Amino acid sequence: MNRQELTDLVFRKKSVLCVGLDSELAKIPGHIREGRTDEDAVFEFNKAIVDATIQYTVAYKPNLAFYEAMGLAGWNALYRTVAYIRLLEEPVFIIADAKRADIGNTSRLYASAFFGDGKTSPDFDAVTVAPYMGSDSVSPFLSFEGKWVILLALTSNPGADDFQLTQTPDGMQLFERVLTQSKQWGNENNMMYVIGATRAEMLKKVRTIVPDNFLLIPGVGAQGGDLGEVLKNGWNNSGGLLINASRSIIFASSGNDFAEAAATEAARMQTEMAEFINKQ
Amino acid sequence: MNRQELTDLVFRKKSVLCVGLDSELAKIPGHIREGRTDEDAVFEFNKAIVDATIQYTVAYKPNLAFYEAMGLAGWNALYRTVAYIRLLEEPVFIIADAKRADIGNTSRLYASAFFGDGKTSPDFDAVTVAPYMGSDSVSPFLSFEGKWVILLALTSNPGADDFQLTQTPDGMQLFERVLTQSKQWGNENNMMYVIGATRAEMLKKVRTIVPDNFLLIPGVGAQGGDLGEVLKNGWNNSGGLLINASRSIIFASSGNDFAEAAATEAARMQTEMAEFINKQ
Repeated sequence: MNRQELTDLVFRKKSVLCVGLDSELAKIPGHIREGRTDEDAVFEFNKAIVDATIQYTVAYKPNLAFYEAMGLAGWNALYRTVAYIRLLEEPVFIIADAKRADIGNTSRLYASAFFGDGKTSPDFDAVTVAPYMGSDSVSPFLSFEGKWVILLALTSNPGADDFQLTQTPDGMQLFERVLTQSKQWGNENNMMYVIGATRAEMLKKVRTIVPDNFLLIPGVGAQGGDLGEVLKNGWNNSGGLLINASRSIIFASSGNDFAEAAATEAARMQTEMAEFINKQ
Repeated sequence: MNRQELTDLVFRKKSVLCVGLDSELAKIPGHIREGRTDEDAVFEFNKAIVDATIQYTVAYKPNLAFYEAMGLAGWNALYRTVAYIRLLEEPVFIIADAKRADIGNTSRLYASAFFGDGKTSPDFDAVTVAPYMGSDSVSPFLSFEGKWVILLALTSNPGADDFQLTQTPDGMQLFERVLTQSKQWGNENNMMYVIGATRAEMLKKVRTIVPDNFLLIPGVGAQGGDLGEVLKNGWNNSGGLLINASRSIIFASSGNDFAEAAATEAARMQTEMAEFINKQ
C-alpha cells in the first residue's frame, strides 16, 4: 500500500488506529482454545478480532514474538492470519512487528521474507527494523514498491533511556540522529518511524526532523500513553500517524464477548480520532 | 551449555571455530536440491555440513534470515537441523543468529522461543540480541540457566559506522557504552558480545572493558577479517572467542564434494587455531 492509499484510508475511515495482534496463546479466551489445536485457536481468535474491528482500523500489527514462541504452529497461525486479512474486501495496512535487521546481504533475505507473494512468504506492507547496524542493514527493505520500513527511533519501554536518549556530539540525542541520518536512506514514501506514546511530549521535536513521515505510535492503552496528546503533537496533513493499541483492545474481555468488547474499545478510540480528524 | 563446559570444549578440540549455517537455498548444490523439497534440501545440506565439520568446531550458528525467507519450509528445516545436532553424541554450542529484542514482556516470549524444550521450540544455547531498546529488552533472555545472550556491540558491516562509532558524552563510542552498560545486566556466565573481525584492531579496546566475556566474531573468511589478529587480540584464559565463518566453509565448493570442501576449510581454520592455542 503506498502513501496516498494509506492517507486515503485514514481520511475515509476517520481513523489512525492500528490493532496489535499480540495474540498470546495463554490469554486467548478458553472457549476459543477448547477443542482446537493451538494454531487453530490463535487463527480463530485473530479472525474474530479482525472481523470485529476492521471497520474502525486502518492497520493490523502482529508482533512476531507471540507467534515465534509457539514454533511452527505459531508461524502457521501468523501466515494464515495475514492471508485471511488479504482476502477481505476492505484494504488494510499490515505491519510485521519483527524488529529485524542484519548485514546487507542478509537483510535482503529478511525483506523477501516479509514482502512475499502471499504463498511461501506473507504479504506484509511494512516491517519494523532496528537501526543499530546502520544503513546497509536498513536499505535492502526500501527497494520494494509500495512496501515500508518502520524504523525504531524512540521506543515506549523504560530501556529506551539506556541508549536512545544518549547525547551525541552534534547536540542531538541518539534517536534524533537516527531520524536525521536515516532520511538519507529513505523518504516519506517508504520509511516510517516508531515513536512511543509514553513520550508524547517528544513528538513536537520529532516532527521538526521528520514532518512528512508516518509515525507508528505504540504505548497508547495498556502502556498508558495519552491519545489526545499524540494526535495533537503528531498529526500532519497526510494523517501521518498509526496509533497502535494491542492488549487494551484484543484482550478487552476474556469472556465469550471478547470480540464485541474489542469492537467497543476500537470504536471508542476511533471516535476520539474522528473528532480530532473532523476538526483538521 | 555453561561457561566451564564451553571452555572445556575449546581446549579439548583446540578450536574456537563457529560454522555459520547461512544455508541460502539458491546456493545449495544442485544435486542436493534435485528430487527434494526445499525443506528437505536445506536440512540434508545442513546435516552433511555438520557431519563433515563437527570434529573441527565448537559451535554452529544458523542465521535465521535464511530460514525465515523460506517461510514454513525454512522454519521446519531450521528446527530439524537443531534437533539433529542435539542428537549427536558430540556436545556443541548452537547460536540462533536472530538479532531479536523487544519491550520487556515481549522479549520474554522471544526468549522462550529460542530456549525451548526441543519439541515445540528449538533448544538453542544462545541468541543474538540487538541493544537499541535497552535493559528491559535484553534482561528477559538472561534468566535461563546455561543459556546466553550474545549482544550486538560492534558489527562487521559498513553500516556499523553510522551509530556504533558515535561519540557519547563520557568519551566512549556507542559500542563501548553498550559494553559498559550491559555489564550491569549480565555477566561472563550469560552474556557474550558480537565484535566484527573486520575491526580486529578494536579488540584490544574491547578487552579492556569486557576482559572475561566470550566474544562472537563474525567477518573472518568471506568478509575479510584476519584470523591471526583476532586470536592475538581477543583470546583470554577461558578461550573467550567464537570465531565464525559461514560462506567460506559451507559454500567452499558448489559441487558433489561440497561436504569434503567444507571439512577441508574448517580443518584449515582449526589448525591455525590449534597452533595458537598450543602456545598459550
